[in-house]
Amino acid sequence: MTVMPKSLSRREFLYRVAAVGGTGLLLTTLNAWGGEMQSSTSAPPRLTGNGRGRTVIILGAGLAGMSAAYELGNLGYDCRLVEARSFAGGRCQTARRGTTIKEYGGEAQTCDFDQGLYLNHGPWRIPYNHQSVLYYTRLFQVPLEIMVNDNDTSYVYREGNDPLCNRRIRQVEIKADMRGHVAELLAKAVKNNKLDQDLSADDKILLLDYLVNEGNLSRSDLQYRGNEGRGYKVNPGAGIDPGPGVPSDPLGFADLLASKLGHVYSAVHEFWQQATMFQPIGGMDAIAKAFERRVGKNIRYSTVAHSIRQSEKGVSVELRDLAGEPAGTLTGDFCLCTIPLSVLGAVDTDFSPTFKQALRSVSYAPVGKIGLQMKRRFWEEDDFIYGGHVRTNFPGIGSISLPSTGWQTQKGVLQGYYNFEGEATEISAMSLKERADFALAAGQKIFPAYRESFESAFSVAWHRIPFSLGGWADWSGAARKSAYPLLLEGEGRVLLAGEHMSYLPGWQAGAIESAWQQIEKIHRRLHA
Amino acid sequence: MTVMPKSLSRREFLYRVAAVGGTGLLLTTLNAWGGEMQSSTSAPPRLTGNGRGRTVIILGAGLAGMSAAYELGNLGYDCRLVEARSFAGGRCQTARRGTTIKEYGGEAQTCDFDQGLYLNHGPWRIPYNHQSVLYYTRLFQVPLEIMVNDNDTSYVYREGNDPLCNRRIRQVEIKADMRGHVAELLAKAVKNNKLDQDLSADDKILLLDYLVNEGNLSRSDLQYRGNEGRGYKVNPGAGIDPGPGVPSDPLGFADLLASKLGHVYSAVHEFWQQATMFQPIGGMDAIAKAFERRVGKNIRYSTVAHSIRQSEKGVSVELRDLAGEPAGTLTGDFCLCTIPLSVLGAVDTDFSPTFKQALRSVSYAPVGKIGLQMKRRFWEEDDFIYGGHVRTNFPGIGSISLPSTGWQTQKGVLQGYYNFEGEATEISAMSLKERADFALAAGQKIFPAYRESFESAFSVAWHRIPFSLGGWADWSGAARKSAYPLLLEGEGRVLLAGEHMSYLPGWQAGAIESAWQQIEKIHRRLHA
Repeated sequence: MTVMPKSLSRREFLYRVAAVGGTGLLLTTLNAWGGEMQSSTSAPPRLTGNGRGRTVIILGAGLAGMSAAYELGNLGYDCRLVEARSFAGGRCQTARRGTTIKEYGGEAQTCDFDQGLYLNHGPWRIPYNHQSVLYYTRLFQVPLEIMVNDNDTSYVYREGNDPLCNRRIRQVEIKADMRGHVAELLAKAVKNNKLDQDLSADDKILLLDYLVNEGNLSRSDLQYRGNEGRGYKVNPGAGIDPGPGVPSDPLGFADLLASKLGHVYSAVHEFWQQATMFQPIGGMDAIAKAFERRVGKNIRYSTVAHSIRQSEKGVSVELRDLAGEPAGTLTGDFCLCTIPLSVLGAVDTDFSPTFKQALRSVSYAPVGKIGLQMKRRFWEEDDFIYGGHVRTNFPGIGSISLPSTGWQTQKGVLQGYYNFEGEATEISAMSLKERADFALAAGQKIFPAYRESFESAFSVAWHRIPFSLGGWADWSGAARKSAYPLLLEGEGRVLLAGEHMSYLPGWQAGAIESAWQQIEKIHRRLHA
Repeated sequence: MTVMPKSLSRREFLYRVAAVGGTGLLLTTLNAWGGEMQSSTSAPPRLTGNGRGRTVIILGAGLAGMSAAYELGNLGYDCRLVEARSFAGGRCQTARRGTTIKEYGGEAQTCDFDQGLYLNHGPWRIPYNHQSVLYYTRLFQVPLEIMVNDNDTSYVYREGNDPLCNRRIRQVEIKADMRGHVAELLAKAVKNNKLDQDLSADDKILLLDYLVNEGNLSRSDLQYRGNEGRGYKVNPGAGIDPGPGVPSDPLGFADLLASKLGHVYSAVHEFWQQATMFQPIGGMDAIAKAFERRVGKNIRYSTVAHSIRQSEKGVSVELRDLAGEPAGTLTGDFCLCTIPLSVLGAVDTDFSPTFKQALRSVSYAPVGKIGLQMKRRFWEEDDFIYGGHVRTNFPGIGSISLPSTGWQTQKGVLQGYYNFEGEATEISAMSLKERADFALAAGQKIFPAYRESFESAFSVAWHRIPFSLGGWADWSGAARKSAYPLLLEGEGRVLLAGEHMSYLPGWQAGAIESAWQQIEKIHRRLHA
């Protein structure tokens, strides 16, 4: 077997390539490596040799478990997957007509959205920089469409007492006006020689030029008086009326500062939230199903790992069915355990006390989402908002997110809240009906047609979902230092994988890349 | 017949509604009107009465002509459309396998892209604020997808001599770093009390807080040291390596200023370029075809208006076939002429000398585009760029635009240049092969796989396309003042419509909204 030799550093590798092929080839190679995006995060490890005659028990048929099974299977390993749910995918789920869930201590819930409508109540976004996920969507030909994660036309709505509260403001207005006012302030300071020690004469001219463009300032007096990009009072159109349209007035600088609305954006979006953002057409679980078609024959569904034991020769996992009855024992050379730490802590294992302590030290994030089927896409029809998020300061609501699919069709499912931590715990204590009422009351403040358009709800509180018990691993700084390196090593012939074993917690990319790293270790050790 | 009475102003109308229904209804009504986006630009005029027994000759079966025919037809008018081309849609075209064009003085060209690949060589974008276009895509159920018009991950590439030339820089790096450096400069000025007279003590605190967030400054010393949003040197991932990843270093402020790269963006995108941007799935001509299915039976194809004459009673249009042979005469109560002014100037009319002078005073924009079929989507696979535009300072190239459809499939058609004015004229003088070579040489500087991936080209120079003779009306300030109001009035029973009769030149919305205004006039006059 061969793994790209660690001794050949990337820099050396590039140097050698350049020596052979010239700069053109160097550039191509840099491209192939993706520059900033290394091969280790954009493609599975290139493993050679084979795993025939070797068995790997994989606990959990989510994206970590299935990508491990797929790659190891390609090498000839005999992979046995054990999945507690009756379907594969882990948290990679999509709620659509007929989907059932039952939270711990909660009511049974069956989704009754209309045919074709859905909510990705688990992961819902694939940023362009999650090349590991995109590696498989490409390989498996899972059709993608754009997920509109950034929509400046969408509203910000805050309750409160300052002048910009209790009204709908489009994010683009805030951006245009804050940046305009701030550019004006700096431009005038530059013009009035207040920053002389900081800038050369040339730089002053260049900076003024930049600020005029960035802030849409009047070149003559450096004032900000508005920006057609913030929207018009009357849009330009045909003829004389509306003809060139009527410009809109900017929001005042002092009001904007006091409102702190400038915090709804920053210079650039955070890395994982950046466009281009994707979603599989028809629902996120298209990815789970694509994996399942390839490795599903090796999955034992509705089966839990009751105990994990290992010796120097291998691992054995005692299985139970969901009624708690014995369901046989699996033995293998290795075990890749992708069970969330929130659940694994309760499994009977022979891990060392230190290891057990480590895996119990990681807390899991309470997370809640609700999908609301609306009989009319009023956000598109009345407000010209197509996808993206309505930002609010409503506790327990956070953002209201509008669907990025089915443009201009009749109905749509929007995400009525996305809550975390204490707010998620609080909202999840409500009945299903109360949750929907809570979401509707909030949305009604922003969209007059909200409640009257409502047809059906589906809500999930991940911290109460069996076999998940949380949205994702919520690493504290302390646990990252102490527990993380320990857990990454695994114990003996049991290795851990999943989003929790990455710096991309809660992202599918974290699950897949973690699996890639751990199968490389297993392959190395079995062929050492 | 009834048109919404002009005497009932919008404000009054809203007031009356509020008096009846309370604030909730007022808000709903404001929504229905779209607040900033008036009914006049988002829906056709609500005309009542009927046009039975009346004939309207419509010259040109582009979007202006066909939307007029559709709306008038619904009222019972007998609409006779005359179209010089063998198909409907005007400039709303899509080049795909088998599409043929022949520019004046140019070679015949047949598109041989692979099945399923296409280039929108005419209009290619529908911004969310073009509600008139979206009115029909919704009504006719034309499926839309997102057109990625804004992709911060895409490259900017300039040739030149400053330190940031001759290399690929992602736009997100420029945004993050310019805004970071500028925020630092202003924050320090605020901190050091250089702007005391401009700001209250409270505002200073609020502004610093904003700048720290906008520029990703260190809160302790207000320095900009980079921004994870600009991208990493090594992306975060699983395990320890890459684990948290390695941050990237910002570009220097002085280099950025000198490069003027800060001009590739501003606070917010210009209004018509803003997301959410759409395109019909499968090609822009889906809109033309949707209209054609409804009004096509009234279109005489491959027929030109040779002369237009009118009396007090009606209009008669003498037709010719494309060989110049007489093809009959149409008579009607009115004529709506949507022929581009660049072409109309040569038609034999009895317009007054003033009117003729006016329509000849409007120049038309030379515009060129080229589609390049690539056998591999190297921009996605090697560079992780999904849609959007690569900005260059290459004369004759402008932007290279990447397709927003067929994500992760094998092949793709990118737009290799989009040139205007003198550059468009110059490039269009080349042979088809020379144009492709020119585009390939430019793209090769940015993408190492450009030339080797090339399979097939399709180029268009709109100023050389029969029956168009330009991309759009290129209004000078003087012509807007003198000619525009005159042309808008039409002469007698001949009214003009098209993008040229709007403040949205070159946009499909301009064509449609112009038609809406003119049919309202025709309807009023025939029912006065």
